[in-house]
Amino acid sequence: MCKNHTIIFTFVIMVQKMDMADFISNGFKQFIPQLSIDCTIFGYHENQLKVLLRSWKGVDGWCLPGGYIDRSESIEEAAHRILNERTGLTNVFLQQYYTFGDLRRLMNPGNEILLKSSWLYKDARGSWLGDRTISIGYYALIEFSKAVPKPDEFSKDCAWWDIQNLPVLLFDHEQMINKAINTIRTQLKYQPVGLNLLPNKFTLPELQKLYETILDRTIDRRNFQKKILSLGVLKRLDQRRKIGAHRSPSLFTFDKVKYKRALSESKGPGF
Amino acid sequence: MCKNHTIIFTFVIMVQKMDMADFISNGFKQFIPQLSIDCTIFGYHENQLKVLLRSWKGVDGWCLPGGYIDRSESIEEAAHRILNERTGLTNVFLQQYYTFGDLRRLMNPGNEILLKSSWLYKDARGSWLGDRTISIGYYALIEFSKAVPKPDEFSKDCAWWDIQNLPVLLFDHEQMINKAINTIRTQLKYQPVGLNLLPNKFTLPELQKLYETILDRTIDRRNFQKKILSLGVLKRLDQRRKIGAHRSPSLFTFDKVKYKRALSESKGPGF
Repeated sequence: MCKNHTIIFTFVIMVQKMDMADFISNGFKQFIPQLSIDCTIFGYHENQLKVLLRSWKGVDGWCLPGGYIDRSESIEEAAHRILNERTGLTNVFLQQYYTFGDLRRLMNPGNEILLKSSWLYKDARGSWLGDRTISIGYYALIEFSKAVPKPDEFSKDCAWWDIQNLPVLLFDHEQMINKAINTIRTQLKYQPVGLNLLPNKFTLPELQKLYETILDRTIDRRNFQKKILSLGVLKRLDQRRKIGAHRSPSLFTFDKVKYKRALSESKGPGF
Repeated sequence: MCKNHTIIFTFVIMVQKMDMADFISNGFKQFIPQLSIDCTIFGYHENQLKVLLRSWKGVDGWCLPGGYIDRSESIEEAAHRILNERTGLTNVFLQQYYTFGDLRRLMNPGNEILLKSSWLYKDARGSWLGDRTISIGYYALIEFSKAVPKPDEFSKDCAWWDIQNLPVLLFDHEQMINKAINTIRTQLKYQPVGLNLLPNKFTLPELQKLYETILDRTIDRRNFQKKILSLGVLKRLDQRRKIGAHRSPSLFTFDKVKYKRALSESKGPGF
C-alpha cells in the first residue's frame, strides 16, 4: 500500500507556527490532506537561469518549496503564500502549469533510501502525512536579485541553483522542474517575455540573450530582431548604449499596454 | 464553513457499483477525498463543436462528466476511466489543462438553490462528500460520431450540447469549459490539429473549417493554406474531390510521422 512506501515531505511553511507533534497529529484539520502545492521559481540574472530549492534538516537531497493548502484559502492564495514565505516577494506572476498525480511520485529508489533513513519518515508515516499526495505545480519567472531566499526552521538551506547544474532532487521534483521549463519554452512561442526580468531600458542583444538562456539554444540575430519587432511590444528609445568604439546599440523599453495585450491575446514571436 | 455550503456532485461512475449509502459512508476509503477529476470532452462533426454533458436525477442543470480518484490509480488513469465510462472510448488523447481550486467553486447563487433542493445535498452534506473539493480538468477533442454517450444510474441524461448553445451549468463548469476552449485555441498556435477529427482524406477547405469552428472566426483562405502547408504535416494525394462543375479541390492526408513530430516540437501554424 502507498501508506507504507510514501511520505509527504512538502511540509507547509506554516509548520513553523505549529508544534511539530501537533502538526503530525492534527494538521489535517487545518489543511486539506493528500494535496499539496509545489512552486518552481526560476530566477534570471545576467544570462543565467536558476531555480530556488530547499533542503531538509536530516535528509540529503533538495526539493522545491511547497506546502499544503489551508482549508480557508484558494489554491491560488496558497501558491502565493508559499512563494512569499520562501522569497519575501509579493505580487509575482505565478502560473499553474501541471498537477502531478502518479502513484509513486514521492518515491524512487534513490529517494526511498534517503527518506527511510530520515527522522520525518519515522515520525510521520502512520499519520495523515504518510498518505499518497497529489501536487499542483506553479511556476514563476522572477528577477533573481529581487528575491531573498529564506529557509524555515525545518530547512537546512534554501538557495538558488543553476538549472544546468542541479543537485540530487527528492521525489518527482526533477520531473516537475523539467515540465515547468518545457512549459515556459512553449509559451515563448505565443507570449512575450522580459518585463520584470530585464532593466527598464535594454538592448535587443540583451533581450535576445534572455530568450536564448530560457531556450538553451542560440537564435539567428536577424531572425530574432525581425520577429520580436513585428510583435509590436517594444518601444525604441532615442538613446543608445555605448559599449565600444563602433558599437552603440539602440535602447528599447516595453510598451506595457501592448505587452499586456499580447499576453492576453496569446501573441508571441513563435521561436 | 465550506462544509455547510458546498456539496460534491462529481460522483464517480463507480458509484453505480456500490450501494449509495455505503458510498456516502465509506467511499473515502476507496477514493481520495476532496479531489476530483472533470472531463471536458469536445466532439467535432461536420463543422459543429459540441461538448458532452450529463444531468443528475432530481436536479435541474447539467455538468461535466467527472469522478473521484481511486487510491490505487494515477490521476491519468482516473481521467481515462471516467472518459471511457461516459463514452465507451479508449485510447483517446486526454490532456490535463487546469486544476480548479477556488473556495466556493461548487456554489454560485443559482447552484445553491438547485443543490439545496436536491436529494443529494440532504444525504451527503454531513459526509466526506460535503467537504470542499478541488478538481483537475482534462479535455479531449474527439470525432463526435465515434462516441456513444452513456448515462449511469444516477444520471437523468448524458448528451452532446452545441458549445454555442449550452444549458444551465452547475458549479464552476461553465468556467471549466471556457478554460478548456481557450486552452485549445491557444494550442492551435503551436500544434497541428485534425488527426482523428477529419476523415483520412480531406480537402484544405475542410481542414480550414475545422480550425474556424474551434476558433469561432474566419481565417483568410490564402493565409490559411500558406501557413498550414508550410508546417509540413500534410501530404497532397493524387486525387481530387469533385464538388461541382469547376470545383475539384485536391485531397490531402496527414503525414503521421511529421504530425507527431510537430506535436512533440510544439510546431504549429500560429493562427
